[in-house]
Amino acid sequence: MTPPELRTVLVVGTGLIGTSAALALRARGVTVYLRDEDPAALAVAVERGAGSSPDELPAEDAGSAGVDLAVAAVPPQHTAATVLALLDDERVRAVTDVASVKLPVARAVAAHPRAAAYVGGHPMAGREVSGPAAARPDLFRGRSWVLCPPEDGLPAPTAAAVELVTQLALLVGATPLRMTPSDHDAAVALVSHAPHLVSALVAGRLRDAPAPEVRLAGGGVADITRVAASNPALWREILAANAPAVRDVLTALRADLDTAITALGDGDLDRVEGLLAAGVAGRGRLPGKHGSPHAEYVGVPVELADRPGQLARLFADIGAAGVNVEDVRIEHVPGEPVGLVELSVQPHAEASLVDALRARGWAVHG
Amino acid sequence: MTPPELRTVLVVGTGLIGTSAALALRARGVTVYLRDEDPAALAVAVERGAGSSPDELPAEDAGSAGVDLAVAAVPPQHTAATVLALLDDERVRAVTDVASVKLPVARAVAAHPRAAAYVGGHPMAGREVSGPAAARPDLFRGRSWVLCPPEDGLPAPTAAAVELVTQLALLVGATPLRMTPSDHDAAVALVSHAPHLVSALVAGRLRDAPAPEVRLAGGGVADITRVAASNPALWREILAANAPAVRDVLTALRADLDTAITALGDGDLDRVEGLLAAGVAGRGRLPGKHGSPHAEYVGVPVELADRPGQLARLFADIGAAGVNVEDVRIEHVPGEPVGLVELSVQPHAEASLVDALRARGWAVHG
Repeated sequence: MTPPELRTVLVVGTGLIGTSAALALRARGVTVYLRDEDPAALAVAVERGAGSSPDELPAEDAGSAGVDLAVAAVPPQHTAATVLALLDDERVRAVTDVASVKLPVARAVAAHPRAAAYVGGHPMAGREVSGPAAARPDLFRGRSWVLCPPEDGLPAPTAAAVELVTQLALLVGATPLRMTPSDHDAAVALVSHAPHLVSALVAGRLRDAPAPEVRLAGGGVADITRVAASNPALWREILAANAPAVRDVLTALRADLDTAITALGDGDLDRVEGLLAAGVAGRGRLPGKHGSPHAEYVGVPVELADRPGQLARLFADIGAAGVNVEDVRIEHVPGEPVGLVELSVQPHAEASLVDALRARGWAVHG
Repeated sequence: MTPPELRTVLVVGTGLIGTSAALALRARGVTVYLRDEDPAALAVAVERGAGSSPDELPAEDAGSAGVDLAVAAVPPQHTAATVLALLDDERVRAVTDVASVKLPVARAVAAHPRAAAYVGGHPMAGREVSGPAAARPDLFRGRSWVLCPPEDGLPAPTAAAVELVTQLALLVGATPLRMTPSDHDAAVALVSHAPHLVSALVAGRLRDAPAPEVRLAGGGVADITRVAASNPALWREILAANAPAVRDVLTALRADLDTAITALGDGDLDRVEGLLAAGVAGRGRLPGKHGSPHAEYVGVPVELADRPGQLARLFADIGAAGVNVEDVRIEHVPGEPVGLVELSVQPHAEASLVDALRARGWAVHG
């Protein structure tokens, strides 16, 4: 049997994700129809060339058979209802969504007679801004797009539906990954939702601290609390949708925290070191460059005057040295018009980079 | 009265910190004497020009009066004993140390007849590597150096001792900050030690997680767990030395964690949002650029081929656009030979930077 081909897509919800997907699909020659309850958002998306907005989908008849796939790209709390309504429409061959928590949608859909036409999805991409004006056709380039065919006793999707959603991911430039809804939700609780909340709690402790104490904060706590600056109104919905899985992770963390508090009180330093060593091991499992395990890079700190052009000059000199920089961090010194740039490079490249930069007049610390 | 002038310094402990301070002081014309139990380390420091290693300090007599200041730069567990021995030596006018936890040393010193000659210190600088070979005279440039004259009922230091340690900080290029030992220890527990342990606990949860789950990890959890890669043997000593203050912060965090777990279980989303909002407020108090509150920067993501010279070309183009980049992060995409560079700029600079980079052919995910 010839696999189905994705030629026509209906995008419901012309926000950032829906409009970005529509723009990417149009660029690959796919016919895109758009819907949105908000006529202003819809008009922006149409104006940007994301697709057309017919009153009715083309009727299913020989040659021009409805749409191959509908994408529910609406806010999380409306996802299940939108998917169900799309499954009611026989002109829609398969349905997916983009909600960041998958099990509640899969459960809501399970009893529908056409449940096998649904495959949940979660593109691992986003921006701080929202709406169709912020949409970009390259939003998903190089990102993962998780497909969640229901298991766990829920009805399995047809192979054709899985194939169509896989094509969607590939056409927008993403890498499709397959995972059950419950595994997906446990994963995002572990690697995103629970850490986000913990970051917020650590940051929250700084809110009422005396100013001189906060002044001693360095790069470590700045890293730990970076995501805590995110929008609380958005994150409350994400955490609420995935509350059971997030609570599981937080409860395990609370047990670890109790262990740490007790061990510090008892002076049980071996136990404290055990917790720290588990952290080293866990950190080492994060995806590093090119999917390989996290490499051990060496940091090369360079002093930098804070004015335009300094980074350009620095990176030109790095380029001339033929060294590939793996990561860059800029650290500003409170009260000083000078910053430190921490360049991460592979260990074998450290010496030649340091020599080359010093030869070009840079103050390399170390 | 003329303030005392720092002309002669005895550095005890020729590790990274001690040798770096000695090199910086020598460069400013200060006479430096070095001591270390380890003759090999001492020889490296002398060889590097950090100072001389006489069998005896010059006797205190008219014109050449002992040393103005002794710096105990030994491992934390030996700091108090070293400071006490230095106070015993009448040829040493004032004594300081560099341990990262101050109250235990201040308490140990309090009963000494010359306690008023001691002022604790904590330079906020370090490297991943150690030993005199890694020392750099510019290690403290632009960093804070906290001075901790004892209060809290402990004997106050003389004005002359405080002045000499202040000159030490200034001569090595650091910014002296003054704080009581207990305030200092509470501060580093809050902004460094407790967050470090929490980062390790979040990372530790990843240790035994299934590989596909860990694969969904993105930049957020990578930031949160970055410091968790640090040396457990070193951090167990730091946490042990400051255990009471660290436990205070961790206990408060556990209460916040309990609130979060309960609120998620009860569906009390307002309470969840309250915790997230406290995180935004706390994050906003971290020192940003030039000591000002953390500015709200805009992120401009640029796609980058992973080969030498790409960053050079990018920063040259940024420089040509006349835009000052506030921060840079490189994000690698698992399995892809392409990365995203996230440039942080002030909001008013975003549009012109995006336009300039696009005009020069960069894929700006804007």
